[in-house]
Amino acid sequence: MALIVQKYGGSSVRDTERIRRVAERVVSARQDGHDVVVVVSAMGDTTDELLELARHLSPVPPSRELDMLLTAGERISNALTAMAIDALGTAAYSLSGDQAGVFTTAAHGRALITEVSPHRVRQALDRGSVVLVAGFQGFNRETEDITTLGRGGSDTTAIALAAALKADVCEIYTDVDGVFTADPRIVPDARRLDRLSYETMEEMAASGAKVLAPRSVEFARRYGVTVHVRPAHGTGPGTVVSGEGRGEGPSGDQPPSAETRSAVTAVAHDLSGAELTVSGVPDGPGTTAALFRVLADAGVDVDTAVQQTVRPPGRCGDLTLVLPELDGAAALAALREHHAELGFGDLRYDASIGKVSLIGTGMRSRAGVIARFCEALSATDVNITAISTAESRISVLCRADRLHDAVRALHAAFRLGTE
Amino acid sequence: MALIVQKYGGSSVRDTERIRRVAERVVSARQDGHDVVVVVSAMGDTTDELLELARHLSPVPPSRELDMLLTAGERISNALTAMAIDALGTAAYSLSGDQAGVFTTAAHGRALITEVSPHRVRQALDRGSVVLVAGFQGFNRETEDITTLGRGGSDTTAIALAAALKADVCEIYTDVDGVFTADPRIVPDARRLDRLSYETMEEMAASGAKVLAPRSVEFARRYGVTVHVRPAHGTGPGTVVSGEGRGEGPSGDQPPSAETRSAVTAVAHDLSGAELTVSGVPDGPGTTAALFRVLADAGVDVDTAVQQTVRPPGRCGDLTLVLPELDGAAALAALREHHAELGFGDLRYDASIGKVSLIGTGMRSRAGVIARFCEALSATDVNITAISTAESRISVLCRADRLHDAVRALHAAFRLGTE
Repeated sequence: MALIVQKYGGSSVRDTERIRRVAERVVSARQDGHDVVVVVSAMGDTTDELLELARHLSPVPPSRELDMLLTAGERISNALTAMAIDALGTAAYSLSGDQAGVFTTAAHGRALITEVSPHRVRQALDRGSVVLVAGFQGFNRETEDITTLGRGGSDTTAIALAAALKADVCEIYTDVDGVFTADPRIVPDARRLDRLSYETMEEMAASGAKVLAPRSVEFARRYGVTVHVRPAHGTGPGTVVSGEGRGEGPSGDQPPSAETRSAVTAVAHDLSGAELTVSGVPDGPGTTAALFRVLADAGVDVDTAVQQTVRPPGRCGDLTLVLPELDGAAALAALREHHAELGFGDLRYDASIGKVSLIGTGMRSRAGVIARFCEALSATDVNITAISTAESRISVLCRADRLHDAVRALHAAFRLGTE
Repeated sequence: MALIVQKYGGSSVRDTERIRRVAERVVSARQDGHDVVVVVSAMGDTTDELLELARHLSPVPPSRELDMLLTAGERISNALTAMAIDALGTAAYSLSGDQAGVFTTAAHGRALITEVSPHRVRQALDRGSVVLVAGFQGFNRETEDITTLGRGGSDTTAIALAAALKADVCEIYTDVDGVFTADPRIVPDARRLDRLSYETMEEMAASGAKVLAPRSVEFARRYGVTVHVRPAHGTGPGTVVSGEGRGEGPSGDQPPSAETRSAVTAVAHDLSGAELTVSGVPDGPGTTAALFRVLADAGVDVDTAVQQTVRPPGRCGDLTLVLPELDGAAALAALREHHAELGFGDLRYDASIGKVSLIGTGMRSRAGVIARFCEALSATDVNITAISTAESRISVLCRADRLHDAVRALHAAFRLGTE
């Protein structure tokens, strides 16, 4: 008798046949005696189709209206899934984000959950219903407006609900078998990870691993929600993400032995970024800060920034930023507008870059990891255009068309695969 | 400087190109200095497509979930229309039914509006925005659930909002040029009516004229809302429905003169009904009442009932009912279930019937109208299977395949056309 929150992505509910399969899985958990709350994304490509309609009508659709538009997608999949569960003879009760008490900031398109008051969810569970909650959407109390949570918002809805309901587990159903040491479509011998710490999962998500959205993992960590990534089709064991970081590592019989082996968990890669190089940035603590302020005011999220540190003191250097390709136009416009006050040289923009990251713990302090990292890439002829290191991650930028080779080289060099 | 509520049907917003044309019309009214509230139906066939998905998943989808599902359609068209207006440089603000304060009973799928508290609509108008309200949907305060108003619900939303806002006029845009003396696709010389009383319009709507839903006209009458039926494309004058019944009649130069001419306004027809004949109904006041109670409990709306009055006292007679074809299965099941207690003979069910109605005032009291009515049908070889009369209407049932001929014969006999 547990309380389980289950989340199904758009591809799991893309047509009525798949919705029926989701319903069967939900009903099976209910028949095992569990209380079940279900969060579904919009069906298949619904969100993209609605965005396409919006773009036909307006080059820059107002974000408030965009949220009213997009939230219809989850209401549809939500109600349909409720019907499918009901048709199997199990009571089902659907709630929109606002009805489920998912309250957010007023920032349309990227609202943050401020509070979850799931009393209607609780009441319906107490009546014996499976409860469905539309993902990705919330409600701002001040403006009384409907909001959306941005990319991966349905994961965040599920995890936030699990936290508020003190659920035993939040199951995230995906079209992969779990979290792997690298993308198995690129690295055939990638290994599924049995369990992962929040910190490692967060770093992987931030580095491009698609399984979970970074914000949702942060939420899980903050509230200690155990997240179980499971395959939507099939019965594989998946991957458990929790606070128990011990025992982290590839699934397998032998325990991790070598120091390097235990330090490094996975290779992640990301093609969604673009590289913006600001050349001739005047030296001094104020300049870089001013530049980041301009970008922040323009709503640009800078992912990685690398400053060329090897330069004569007092001389201008280059600053390389990685930012979401979607924000590229806004970033260029903002910097050009403030060119005079920032006093930099040129801007170079390149969307065809990739980022490959090695994720683990104690990466910077462990001698030899960076060296082995660079040697592996060099042996495969991957040119590195920038490198950034942190305790839990080493990331480099390279040409997009070299990215898959880089992933394979690192995965092999750190012996992450099945052997 | 007027306050105008405009309602656009699904075919007027069926694609982005049409939504843009609606936006242009709205902006034009705004630029003329009017305050504008817009109610849109779901795009094109959205509602039918969503119903189809629901039927794939459940033979009898729960009505609460069906309402959650279907209301997504109007939210989509609503937000898209707001974007299109915004893109033309006019501020637009969309509201769902609950945000606009459209409160209803809890009867899912056929909720009745109990109250409209449009303070958010008013605030947005005061800020200078065009306000868009999703049609067809409302909110029940007790259950905190989303409801739908049933067929023609968007007309009702528009008229109820116009009443609550004390709007100067509620404009209903349709794909026809106004209300006609008969359907112009069937009767080529049908005349557009300049103005109509609520009572006549209500009778026409109840008799199958598609332009306005009967409930919305009832609402308009109750609150004295002037309704202007206008073509969505083109600039024709349309038809005004209001409490000023004088001057009612076909548009034209000459005032109506002959008594009969002024009494009869239009011919309406309806193919959506089915005929259910209950034979051998025992005589006595209680039996028929019990039968209607059984049908009402099964949720069947009986449109017309004709009891064969010519029969020996104390003997069984036939009762012919016309009901929506959609309710046919439910009606048959309910009557069969209560066969023993009701004690009737057989049931005969026929969906291929049509109803033709002559609409006007003082029809029953005016000698000769019924006679002329029957003569006209007889001369065209239309067999009448049942007849019902009221002060404002004479209706007969005939075979569906004779219906158009019946409409043309009556239209000609009462000289309703252009001459």
